[in-house]
Amino acid sequence: MGRELAFIEALRALASDPAARGLADDCAVLPFGSETLVLTHDTMVAGVHFLPDQDPADVAWKLVATNMSDLAAKGAVPMGVLLSYQLNGAEPRFLVGLAEALDEYGARLLGGDTVSSDGPQVLGLTAIGRASFLPVPGRNGAQVGDLVYITGPVGGAMVGLEALRLGLPESQSLAYRRPQAHLGEGQALAPFVTAMMDVSDGLLLDASRMARASKVTISLESAAIPLACSEDRRDEALRWGDDYQLLLTAPPELTLPLPMHQIGVVVKGQEAPVLIDGAPPLGSLGYQH
Amino acid sequence: MGRELAFIEALRALASDPAARGLADDCAVLPFGSETLVLTHDTMVAGVHFLPDQDPADVAWKLVATNMSDLAAKGAVPMGVLLSYQLNGAEPRFLVGLAEALDEYGARLLGGDTVSSDGPQVLGLTAIGRASFLPVPGRNGAQVGDLVYITGPVGGAMVGLEALRLGLPESQSLAYRRPQAHLGEGQALAPFVTAMMDVSDGLLLDASRMARASKVTISLESAAIPLACSEDRRDEALRWGDDYQLLLTAPPELTLPLPMHQIGVVVKGQEAPVLIDGAPPLGSLGYQH
Repeated sequence: MGRELAFIEALRALASDPAARGLADDCAVLPFGSETLVLTHDTMVAGVHFLPDQDPADVAWKLVATNMSDLAAKGAVPMGVLLSYQLNGAEPRFLVGLAEALDEYGARLLGGDTVSSDGPQVLGLTAIGRASFLPVPGRNGAQVGDLVYITGPVGGAMVGLEALRLGLPESQSLAYRRPQAHLGEGQALAPFVTAMMDVSDGLLLDASRMARASKVTISLESAAIPLACSEDRRDEALRWGDDYQLLLTAPPELTLPLPMHQIGVVVKGQEAPVLIDGAPPLGSLGYQH
Repeated sequence: MGRELAFIEALRALASDPAARGLADDCAVLPFGSETLVLTHDTMVAGVHFLPDQDPADVAWKLVATNMSDLAAKGAVPMGVLLSYQLNGAEPRFLVGLAEALDEYGARLLGGDTVSSDGPQVLGLTAIGRASFLPVPGRNGAQVGDLVYITGPVGGAMVGLEALRLGLPESQSLAYRRPQAHLGEGQALAPFVTAMMDVSDGLLLDASRMARASKVTISLESAAIPLACSEDRRDEALRWGDDYQLLLTAPPELTLPLPMHQIGVVVKGQEAPVLIDGAPPLGSLGYQH
């Protein structure tokens, strides 16, 4: 983590460009003629981001969905994707999931390339979107006094991965295998939010990132956070990624265009970027990869 | 190769989209508001596309240059790049080469991501460009009667790699380590060409791809092809990639805006897509990866 962060910081310095905030897990935003481009790239590695023996159709789905989720957080409309695919012999199943995911999100396969390598399979996807609202929401706009919202429950992917590992019926692992990107919600919410991002690495960790970027503290109320798991696993669920809900902040006087879960408030920045029931969370905040 | 081609064909079928010609080694072209986007993604794997012990600064340069060369063949102006980087501890040297290459080509680092993996290093780059001329040149427009041109000599990277492996002075391996993308040439030529592509996998192989895409045969005159190696290695040089010259076709009555090497003519399609001195080339056509 330290090495990765240092590298990303060095890349950002090299870029000297506000658009380079896209490094790591955000999107790049680029004015382009009469439109604004929203670009993101996610790489997944077998054994790190997916189980080596997982159904390649699910892996393809997740590769597309994670990138679509990045676009969703920007209120962007998907234009297409470029695929970087490392051949491993499981192409037929991969194609099935890829087709399903592209169809689901209305994204076109525009191009990409294939490579051969003996190492763990590395898959990359670049997603290209069109901003539906300007300014494009960032993670750095949360204001003191804003309310904090999330689009849906967390913990579903956590339970889903366990079900998959245990060989339980497929329906029980769906949340992990086939995460949903909230594109429609992101587009509808973009005009209303002061900050928005997707929760890919755990609610507490991603909330802390939003708070640091916005130079505020996000104070969450634990009991208000909707769960897709049993109550006794609440602490874990707040630290578990892969649910891809949208986390957002908006002024209290605004009525949002969708029903949302209000889970906290934005307060003046203090030492801890995120508070849970008034105190800094204990232990790790989430999945740092 | 068979498996890769089959997969790419399946992806193309899945895409059902003319823009999906970008699969494999071409660019995707996408109307976007008042402009036209040109997108490309290249992945490089240690031990396949570069030597595992090569200077990471040179690897970074090549990663950028190969993608810029794809843009060059479309007459595109670089807008920026997204980097997919697998951490391996050699980040400081990689950053040096990345900065040099981005500066050379006026491309901005817009974003990307980093991953960790134990396998051979896998590096990806997505390049985003703006079309400078419409229609964007493709590899499929060569017409019977057109003349065939190349921007410069081939064989330089072949000799350069040998020099690198032998530990000869750095200047002798420059063509391999620091290939040049011909962006200015591509932009100047785009309005004049019927077809254009960069030579990344060997002149004979890439010419055969252009010929097949255009449903013609490309008849090359061996002695007219400029070399960056000794004459006795001509046959090898025509099959060696990594020189990134532009290969193009244009009507004979046109005067091109740059001095070019005329190396052949486009003739009616026959069984062999490419002829060298009137006969199908013997053996492999180039580097198939």
